[in-house]
Amino acid sequence: MTIPALTPIGVIRSTLRSLEDAPRQGDEGAPDAWLEVDPAVAPALTGLRAGDAIVLITWLDRADRGVLETHPRNDPSLPRIGVFATRSPDRPNPLGLHRVTIRAVDGTRLRVGPLEAVDGTPVLDVKIVWRD
Amino acid sequence: MTIPALTPIGVIRSTLRSLEDAPRQGDEGAPDAWLEVDPAVAPALTGLRAGDAIVLITWLDRADRGVLETHPRNDPSLPRIGVFATRSPDRPNPLGLHRVTIRAVDGTRLRVGPLEAVDGTPVLDVKIVWRD
Repeated sequence: MTIPALTPIGVIRSTLRSLEDAPRQGDEGAPDAWLEVDPAVAPALTGLRAGDAIVLITWLDRADRGVLETHPRNDPSLPRIGVFATRSPDRPNPLGLHRVTIRAVDGTRLRVGPLEAVDGTPVLDVKIVWRD
Repeated sequence: MTIPALTPIGVIRSTLRSLEDAPRQGDEGAPDAWLEVDPAVAPALTGLRAGDAIVLITWLDRADRGVLETHPRNDPSLPRIGVFATRSPDRPNPLGLHRVTIRAVDGTRLRVGPLEAVDGTPVLDVKIVWRD
């Protein structure tokens, strides 16, 4: 089976300009950023508000899709393991998962953070974390 | 920007045959299932073992990609909200997130659960939950 073509629902606007600037995990000092949502899907934002915890699914467009094994935590002294046993961006389908908090809603823009994704990263989906 | 074509890295084999059989959340009595991984990416599994917590990202191929607003928890008495404020499978890019535990590893097959995905669901990615 082949997956139909995907169109991003939005894009990240961040002060992080390169992978070298990005921390390894979102909770290690990553900045807040803007998620600019395509106006065509704006109704899908209805009900989201500041304080909500959400998960962003991104397309890590700078990743190497040919990598199947890597050193854990990018540490060459550790034995190589499969990328599915890591959080490396390099993997066959480089989808990023980012749990963030909505800081503010401004029309079709969401201020979110902390977020380790670099400027220009396409966003494929937004899911609320269950409000229990 | 358009996302390049995605090829599933595997498929779910489950006793759940239809959406009507599937619970709304993975922790509501969903069964264990098999993830059959494409042998072409088998090295990416190296290091995964029984007991590991992983996240599966699936392609919800039966979802309606044209839905932007829906009733929370599928309850028509509740006001409609945007799909990004829900966990509905119906959304522009119907990606599913499933946190499961590996029960067993059998070659390129992983026994995982509990999993609410139906039989035949394509799997796009596997990520370990951080071992802290």
